[in-house]
Amino acid sequence: MIKKFSKIRSISESQIIEKYLTKLNFDKKESFGFNNDASYLNSFKNYKNIVTNDSIVEGVDFFKNDNPQSIAQKIVTSNLSDLSAMGAKPYCYTLNLCLPKYITIDWLKSFSNYLNKLQKKYNFFLLGGDLSKSKQLMISSTFFGLAKYKNIISRNNLSIDDDIWITGNLGESYVGLKIIKNKVSENLDIKIKNYFLKKYYFPTPCMIGCKIAKYCNSGIDISDGFIGDLKKIIGTKFGAKIQLNSLPISKFVKIALKNNFLRFDEIINCGDDYELILIVPKKNSDKIQEIAYKNKIKISKIGKIIKTKGIFSEYGKSVISKNYFKHFA
Amino acid sequence: MIKKFSKIRSISESQIIEKYLTKLNFDKKESFGFNNDASYLNSFKNYKNIVTNDSIVEGVDFFKNDNPQSIAQKIVTSNLSDLSAMGAKPYCYTLNLCLPKYITIDWLKSFSNYLNKLQKKYNFFLLGGDLSKSKQLMISSTFFGLAKYKNIISRNNLSIDDDIWITGNLGESYVGLKIIKNKVSENLDIKIKNYFLKKYYFPTPCMIGCKIAKYCNSGIDISDGFIGDLKKIIGTKFGAKIQLNSLPISKFVKIALKNNFLRFDEIINCGDDYELILIVPKKNSDKIQEIAYKNKIKISKIGKIIKTKGIFSEYGKSVISKNYFKHFA
Repeated sequence: MIKKFSKIRSISESQIIEKYLTKLNFDKKESFGFNNDASYLNSFKNYKNIVTNDSIVEGVDFFKNDNPQSIAQKIVTSNLSDLSAMGAKPYCYTLNLCLPKYITIDWLKSFSNYLNKLQKKYNFFLLGGDLSKSKQLMISSTFFGLAKYKNIISRNNLSIDDDIWITGNLGESYVGLKIIKNKVSENLDIKIKNYFLKKYYFPTPCMIGCKIAKYCNSGIDISDGFIGDLKKIIGTKFGAKIQLNSLPISKFVKIALKNNFLRFDEIINCGDDYELILIVPKKNSDKIQEIAYKNKIKISKIGKIIKTKGIFSEYGKSVISKNYFKHFA
Repeated sequence: MIKKFSKIRSISESQIIEKYLTKLNFDKKESFGFNNDASYLNSFKNYKNIVTNDSIVEGVDFFKNDNPQSIAQKIVTSNLSDLSAMGAKPYCYTLNLCLPKYITIDWLKSFSNYLNKLQKKYNFFLLGGDLSKSKQLMISSTFFGLAKYKNIISRNNLSIDDDIWITGNLGESYVGLKIIKNKVSENLDIKIKNYFLKKYYFPTPCMIGCKIAKYCNSGIDISDGFIGDLKKIIGTKFGAKIQLNSLPISKFVKIALKNNFLRFDEIINCGDDYELILIVPKKNSDKIQEIAYKNKIKISKIGKIIKTKGIFSEYGKSVISKNYFKHFA
């Protein structure tokens, strides 16, 4: 179902459904062509339907006049990233759009075309949704994925000496945000600037989760910062020893660090990287690297699980003590 | 998972999770105790997971300082009503809360306690969710229900001469709204006033859907007004003949009509009654009435499906022509 279109006054119900949303259900029976009060989910033998949701809000997760393609990318990435962190592959999603008056036909066209592109890229379809009017643009989405029950990646399933791996690079999106907020020197090379802006506006999910699931003990995606999310995954029973020198950063982030556009503590505490932290038994190291290599995904071993509670650097100091990074930076 | 709590600055993450939300997962394994990036849905043999969602927005679906219990009632009722209209029984739900700064601990306490009460009444649990900050209070929710595939009630599955039934009474909630907007004389009896205010603030879903599903051809819940929703269910191939004199209205609505606090056209075009329109083959009349009687639910036969396209009254006039109710009122 797609409901409440009549609440959007300036754009007719039939225009929104016919021109912008119907194409997104990929003619799947489960959506009932958006003609019912609800949709249904198929179940697949040996698989569980994994459910996650995320909302993004104007002025919080994006700026008021951001490109609708960027907004589409963010609602998709934040949800797909959660599915991947659970070891699930994408299946379908629902979309609750709360639209302010300034939303135009062109906006809807650009937004829905880009969703269409992302759906084809990651192979999922629109199951249903709901439309409301509001003062702020707000998008809530529930995503459904599929994972074998025994392969669901949980948090807090750890053993001492398990390796800590991380995908991709850290801090990329955050430098983009700093550029937008004019907190980076204008002298920064335009190529590097655009590189970071793209990382901020179009963050991509790391979809290795379902391929790597059976070799991992635990996993989480980095949405609230590396240290914050690592804390969540190690829970209260264990600790972690991190090789700060091994943390994956791109050559451009190195330039940003060198030019004091960025501090190291920002890299490990900033959000929205959408990379994965994976906790992997030592014996699976080769397998993990092989799968990452095949899928052209960068993966780095950056530490291990230890008995002593807390997060420590290679120098033995606590990484989460408040003063640590004052010294480190 | 319940995520992004750190975005609510004035209230700590642990307070919200521990004190207000964890109790709502009813210790169900599917929620992973809100400790993972996602949850999972169980599938049940012979049943489909039915999915619906609805958002409610401050200033649109409720007023800024409305009682949090009323807001909880509305997000639950609008979604349960959709599940019922599909012939499904409730299973679980997710909650995306976009909370402005004025939301207090007391608000969260009252809101979550009332959700708890509704969950116990209708037998469903909280699977997961997401928290964001915003300027307006906005709540999106995805509800999951269970229905046997062959019993899913669809729209547009009609035959000529099928009866049109309607549950409960029409126009109740709308009079409440008119009272709040000071569009009803202050002389209205306080008892009657409170009756309507309760109907507006605490609308209840008609949960007969899953019990009656196999005897119905089609169904829809009335959220956009009786005529509007009837139009949706009859689609483009058929028409309907309605006995306007048989439309179910309470004795209080009769008083409101008599005192000119309400026009008849408002009753059949106002939303948020959350009653069901059911299209039922003639042979199932007795069965429908028997089930409704057993469940203490009022149900009225109010018309039938006809070949001629359009919606007509017993007087043969089109009910949806713009001028009809000018004459009728």
